[in-house]
Amino acid sequence: MIVRPHPTFFEKTFAIHGSILVAILPKVLFACLTGLAAYLVHSDDDPFFAFTPFTALGVAISLFLGFRNNACYERWWEGRKQWGAQVICTRNLARTCLTFLGSEVSIDDVGVAGIEIDETNPKSPTSRSIASIISSLGVCHSHLLRGQLRGIWLSGHPKPPNPSYPADAVVDALKYAPEGHHESLANAKNQPDAALRLAASWVQRCLATQTIDTIAAQSILKDLNDLSSVQGACERLSTALVPFPYSLLVHRTIIFYIVLAPFAMAGDLGQYTAPFNAIVAYTFFGLDEVARQMEQPFGDEPLCLSMSAICRTIETSVKEAFGEEASPPLAPDQRHCLM
Amino acid sequence: MIVRPHPTFFEKTFAIHGSILVAILPKVLFACLTGLAAYLVHSDDDPFFAFTPFTALGVAISLFLGFRNNACYERWWEGRKQWGAQVICTRNLARTCLTFLGSEVSIDDVGVAGIEIDETNPKSPTSRSIASIISSLGVCHSHLLRGQLRGIWLSGHPKPPNPSYPADAVVDALKYAPEGHHESLANAKNQPDAALRLAASWVQRCLATQTIDTIAAQSILKDLNDLSSVQGACERLSTALVPFPYSLLVHRTIIFYIVLAPFAMAGDLGQYTAPFNAIVAYTFFGLDEVARQMEQPFGDEPLCLSMSAICRTIETSVKEAFGEEASPPLAPDQRHCLM
Amino acid sequence: MIVRPHPTFFEKTFAIHGSILVAILPKVLFACLTGLAAYLVHSDDDPFFAFTPFTALGVAISLFLGFRNNACYERWWEGRKQWGAQVICTRNLARTCLTFLGSEVSIDDVGVAGIEIDETNPKSPTSRSIASIISSLGVCHSHLLRGQLRGIWLSGHPKPPNPSYPADAVVDALKYAPEGHHESLANAKNQPDAALRLAASWVQRCLATQTIDTIAAQSILKDLNDLSSVQGACERLSTALVPFPYSLLVHRTIIFYIVLAPFAMAGDLGQYTAPFNAIVAYTFFGLDEVARQMEQPFGDEPLCLSMSAICRTIETSVKEAFGEEASPPLAPDQRHCLM
Amino acid sequence: MIVRPHPTFFEKTFAIHGSILVAILPKVLFACLTGLAAYLVHSDDDPFFAFTPFTALGVAISLFLGFRNNACYERWWEGRKQWGAQVICTRNLARTCLTFLGSEVSIDDVGVAGIEIDETNPKSPTSRSIASIISSLGVCHSHLLRGQLRGIWLSGHPKPPNPSYPADAVVDALKYAPEGHHESLANAKNQPDAALRLAASWVQRCLATQTIDTIAAQSILKDLNDLSSVQGACERLSTALVPFPYSLLVHRTIIFYIVLAPFAMAGDLGQYTAPFNAIVAYTFFGLDEVARQMEQPFGDEPLCLSMSAICRTIETSVKEAFGEEASPPLAPDQRHCLM
Amino acid sequence: MIVRPHPTFFEKTFAIHGSILVAILPKVLFACLTGLAAYLVHSDDDPFFAFTPFTALGVAISLFLGFRNNACYERWWEGRKQWGAQVICTRNLARTCLTFLGSEVSIDDVGVAGIEIDETNPKSPTSRSIASIISSLGVCHSHLLRGQLRGIWLSGHPKPPNPSYPADAVVDALKYAPEGHHESLANAKNQPDAALRLAASWVQRCLATQTIDTIAAQSILKDLNDLSSVQGACERLSTALVPFPYSLLVHRTIIFYIVLAPFAMAGDLGQYTAPFNAIVAYTFFGLDEVARQMEQPFGDEPLCLSMSAICRTIETSVKEAFGEEASPPLAPDQRHCLM
Repeated sequence: MIVRPHPTFFEKTFAIHGSILVAILPKVLFACLTGLAAYLVHSDDDPFFAFTPFTALGVAISLFLGFRNNACYERWWEGRKQWGAQVICTRNLARTCLTFLGSEVSIDDVGVAGIEIDETNPKSPTSRSIASIISSLGVCHSHLLRGQLRGIWLSGHPKPPNPSYPADAVVDALKYAPEGHHESLANAKNQPDAALRLAASWVQRCLATQTIDTIAAQSILKDLNDLSSVQGACERLSTALVPFPYSLLVHRTIIFYIVLAPFAMAGDLGQYTAPFNAIVAYTFFGLDEVARQMEQPFGDEPLCLSMSAICRTIETSVKEAFGEEASPPLAPDQRHCLM
Repeated sequence: MIVRPHPTFFEKTFAIHGSILVAILPKVLFACLTGLAAYLVHSDDDPFFAFTPFTALGVAISLFLGFRNNACYERWWEGRKQWGAQVICTRNLARTCLTFLGSEVSIDDVGVAGIEIDETNPKSPTSRSIASIISSLGVCHSHLLRGQLRGIWLSGHPKPPNPSYPADAVVDALKYAPEGHHESLANAKNQPDAALRLAASWVQRCLATQTIDTIAAQSILKDLNDLSSVQGACERLSTALVPFPYSLLVHRTIIFYIVLAPFAMAGDLGQYTAPFNAIVAYTFFGLDEVARQMEQPFGDEPLCLSMSAICRTIETSVKEAFGEEASPPLAPDQRHCLM
Repeated sequence: MIVRPHPTFFEKTFAIHGSILVAILPKVLFACLTGLAAYLVHSDDDPFFAFTPFTALGVAISLFLGFRNNACYERWWEGRKQWGAQVICTRNLARTCLTFLGSEVSIDDVGVAGIEIDETNPKSPTSRSIASIISSLGVCHSHLLRGQLRGIWLSGHPKPPNPSYPADAVVDALKYAPEGHHESLANAKNQPDAALRLAASWVQRCLATQTIDTIAAQSILKDLNDLSSVQGACERLSTALVPFPYSLLVHRTIIFYIVLAPFAMAGDLGQYTAPFNAIVAYTFFGLDEVARQMEQPFGDEPLCLSMSAICRTIETSVKEAFGEEASPPLAPDQRHCLM
Repeated sequence: MIVRPHPTFFEKTFAIHGSILVAILPKVLFACLTGLAAYLVHSDDDPFFAFTPFTALGVAISLFLGFRNNACYERWWEGRKQWGAQVICTRNLARTCLTFLGSEVSIDDVGVAGIEIDETNPKSPTSRSIASIISSLGVCHSHLLRGQLRGIWLSGHPKPPNPSYPADAVVDALKYAPEGHHESLANAKNQPDAALRLAASWVQRCLATQTIDTIAAQSILKDLNDLSSVQGACERLSTALVPFPYSLLVHRTIIFYIVLAPFAMAGDLGQYTAPFNAIVAYTFFGLDEVARQMEQPFGDEPLCLSMSAICRTIETSVKEAFGEEASPPLAPDQRHCLM
Repeated sequence: MIVRPHPTFFEKTFAIHGSILVAILPKVLFACLTGLAAYLVHSDDDPFFAFTPFTALGVAISLFLGFRNNACYERWWEGRKQWGAQVICTRNLARTCLTFLGSEVSIDDVGVAGIEIDETNPKSPTSRSIASIISSLGVCHSHLLRGQLRGIWLSGHPKPPNPSYPADAVVDALKYAPEGHHESLANAKNQPDAALRLAASWVQRCLATQTIDTIAAQSILKDLNDLSSVQGACERLSTALVPFPYSLLVHRTIIFYIVLAPFAMAGDLGQYTAPFNAIVAYTFFGLDEVARQMEQPFGDEPLCLSMSAICRTIETSVKEAFGEEASPPLAPDQRHCLM
């Protein structure tokens, strides 16, 4: 995500970082060339076409671009809302666990049923509080979800730009899961879902030992269900793109316009045909490119969501809830980009 | 659903699979013909019409196409959201059942009231866990819903393209229901609803034997209600289409435009009238066709939702929750189509 | 509602049933006449107006029509969503009642407080299950709501087209209410609300006799509240139409356009002025008429919602839940119309 | 609110009541004058401007008007939805109270803590049922909310058109509150909020005397929270208008257009400039005026919401629930206006 | 926020305060200059360009401006809705606490676990009611959220216009937190979240001492979760702006239009080119500026939300609930601005 909150007039006029001009430069130059060709071959006496019929194509382009842009922005914004909900749900989970379980109930109190805990490992002491274990599994879920989403996105690529992303996410995630869960998490087909199931197994443990009553279990399960909703919505966004024919219709209609309209404009615009066509191409392809990047909000292109930074926010919230030291928030890089 | 996540510039310019060009080719050729006719009969001295009045028709077409496209896309997206919710709800159901029932409570504990279970059949042992039975009925509900929706869609067809679809879905569904339920499911007028009712009958059984308390029953019923909401919304989408007159208005106004506008453009465009009219027809009929396919998101046309693949995802989630081996996810065919 | 799910190209071009052409024919002919008048009185030397200033009116019309059409479609779709929710809620109510009350708890167990039951009447035996009574009151609520909504709609008419509608609905409704409730239902100012209150009185009876606990009562009340929400939303839709000035603005601006524009077009279009004006009138008044019919989704015009068919679906679901024989679903008439 | 559900063609063409023509007549006449001036000073040889550049202004106006109209309509419709929710919530409150409290539990049973009840007053007998007291406080809340909203709206006026409105609402409200609450209600800074707090104090009383359990209290509080949500949303709508600059931008751009465009049209339209400009002004200012009235849905202009009629509906529902005689619904006045 | 509820015709035509004219004056003057330059260098015989091709740019600008304006308005309105929800949730929290805890349960009853209370300080007596402490922490949360949001906004500025804002908010917030919480609140990385956690710790305390049951705790936690949702949504709005490339596309396309279009209009408009270009610039840059201010609803520019006034409303509601004297509401300053 590009983070430049208060740009000045000149930054807005000449900024390169954060602009999509670089990404569409070849297309803009192509429009320059067709404009130049139209200027060179046209004659004032016998113009190829009048411009008026092009209003029909203009109507179609504005319809297609407008629709696709709206649809993609709404996908992007829904993706951001879901990750915002992930932050809220993890905080709620920690608050609920602390309220109903307190910070004293530990593994010793509820036992370990169906879960392998290496009791000899000092890093997963059985005295760890259950509230903290369940809440940390929420953080674990966030990291695994980040990895899963980027993995879905990468798998469609011929050359993944950064294949270590999902692996990184799993490493981050395992820091927040008790040692005994590592194997079952790593082997799961749907890793984030497995994290939620493991959290629920602790709730069941607490119920079985009557540490909490069914009301409290209902409240904790409600928070886990909310995390599950976020995951389901993100999976939907990353597997169901805007139907493919839209991008074809937009793309092809703009190509028609950029190639044909200069021949209709050359009589009116003369030597200015090429730059004018380039400006029109900049606006049309620019919006098309912004829409394309926002269509898949969980990728790693400049406009995609800063899921790593959000995961850090989630870590901080849960750590603070249990009085642990939190890492500082992630900052954007020199190109104003925050992932 | 067409699955081509990262198309290149040339794929977008020349792709055939996933394009709707093939579907509307006859209409585009028809526009070529009217354009050719207009070019042949027009005379520069006495044009039939000026183009200007056609802006009124252009306004109407952009209004109709824009509205219908938005309405149909929202239907398609709501359909996808509902199936995404189906995934979420089935996972929640499994998590809730495991938490409140554990994996040990079995048919032996709660008895079998009002449900015929063939105890001699080794495939439906009475020792099967209730949590697994209820969760599997969620998977069963998904398959039955898929069959029901495709059945509603097919019933409007003169020649159903693949009449075995709904039957397939029932076969898949019955794998996830205890043997004793097969007959009542098969005879039900509304099969998915019957699956939910059967799941609720197990909850009642657990209540009657005091295996769970009313709080836990409330939680499980809540998940069943969520599945019921998905079903109701899908039934609504498949029985209440965008009002019929819209597609008439769109269709007829485009026909008027495609037939009449060339006579107004022939003076300006000359020999280019026919290809230009074909391009305009491609954009208008293209959007119309995309909208038509998305209007019924539960059909089996290329843009319709990949309900079979989603059902597989649901199967995987529930199987993993009970430690069973899951089948691999469905993959798109050579034409990039995933159903 | 018009039900023609898979129309062919020719059906879409020439269909009469389901088209709104018949409803707006007088207006289209009126446009023909003004077009003819303009053609007859115009002279090529001294045209009345240029067409260009009409773009301002065109902007206004597209704004008004587009807005009104969106608003009315959203009303229609919200109406359909509410009735879809009615289906979902009634099913949920039956499932909840069966789970918490089972099918054995009967009037004999809870007594009859404050409700007159004619115990001598064989059709309302005191051994009837409470779950069935409460669920049937949900069906009763659906029929009464249908009657109430159509009654509100009819009351604005000079000549009600079919005054027996609401009465029919009450007859259908009373079949699903115990005999003892008939009088209080018939006398209620707000009949559907009374049905919900009667259902709640049975819940209170069960509470008072400790047949269920407060958790179960909370769940059943939740389902009744959902039915109440549907009712409230439908009452809102049927009493608060799109503000009246909008339809005036749309109507008058189209009239201005249809009357004046031909005089600006006659110079360009000559003898084609009249048919062209008729086509423009068809598109503008066509959209206006579709919007008008959808504005009141609970009326009995062709585009209005098929509330009777939905009530039949509700009946079927509840009957199946209690093992009773259900009637077949309603089918559209020869004009493809399903009410 | 204007109530004319089934207007005929002629009513729509010539209606005065319910039209906003009267409100914008001065502006339409102003447009006539500028059109007349343009006609008088123009000369065919040397027109002031060409009309083409005005398309840029037309784009801006359609953008501004379209946006502002949508925003204001959504405010109006949200206001109506909230009041519809108020109806639903009050009915739910009565149903919930009757179910959990029955009609027998009275002040005698729960005592009167912290609330002054004049026991000598025959109109507030201590034998009154608690269910009825709490439900009536819901009606009281509706009336107080109506008064509060109209009071916020009036306070911005130089000359309040009917200053007795809020006072009337308070009088209506107090009829539904026990005598002992009158003083604390009248003195509260936020009267509707105080009504909800008083209702909650009765719930607390019931809890303290163990008349109900915490589940029942939770259900009743949920209904009170829903009423609180409606109130909060209405306060938001009435204090946060569409940002002021929008109405300036719309207003000023229309003024520019109405003043300048005639000078561009006079060459084309000649003597028809003045009426044509008036028609354009009617459409633009008409939409602007409709938007202005809908922006503040809780005022007392013709398009504002019929809050008094809705309060009467609420009264009826609660009275029927307790078997009391209800007043007839309010009817629109001769100008088809229902407030 | 600009507060001018009932402006007259002349106020709307000539108002300065609340207009955004001042903010965009340099850009309007720049448009004057380019218009003047175009007028001076143009010649009637050889115009630079025809205006017609500019319709393509006009389409792009209307698309960009329309989209960005909608997106920003929705952000602003969502921000306002969230703060409206904050008001509702705080009122609900007070009502819930009073109902389940009453006003008598005090620190003496539940003890002070894990929280340092300076018992020698007369301002935080241990006899203070728990209901009041928890509710006041809701007010505290509101102030801290206000400070946090303005802090995020300020941190992007080169010169913060009023750096004391967030500090002020913390001072206001601490008035509503018990003394013993001051240090942990001040040191928290996420202060508002810490306030909610402290409130939950009191709920846990009440649970541990069995002052309330788990149902009541569930209800209070639900209200805290709602406050947490508001906070999460506000953090999302303030950290995820509309993607940066949009403002570049809008800005640059307007600049192109303002610089180039005069050369196409000079032939038609002559001496009126400069003022006409200024009017067009006013409308385009005006909308751009309104959108820019609304994009960040939590800043301190004139159109930003009046968070201080809303916090005062929240204070009033909670104070009234506990019978304390409330401060008067904040009023707009002379420039009609309310922050």
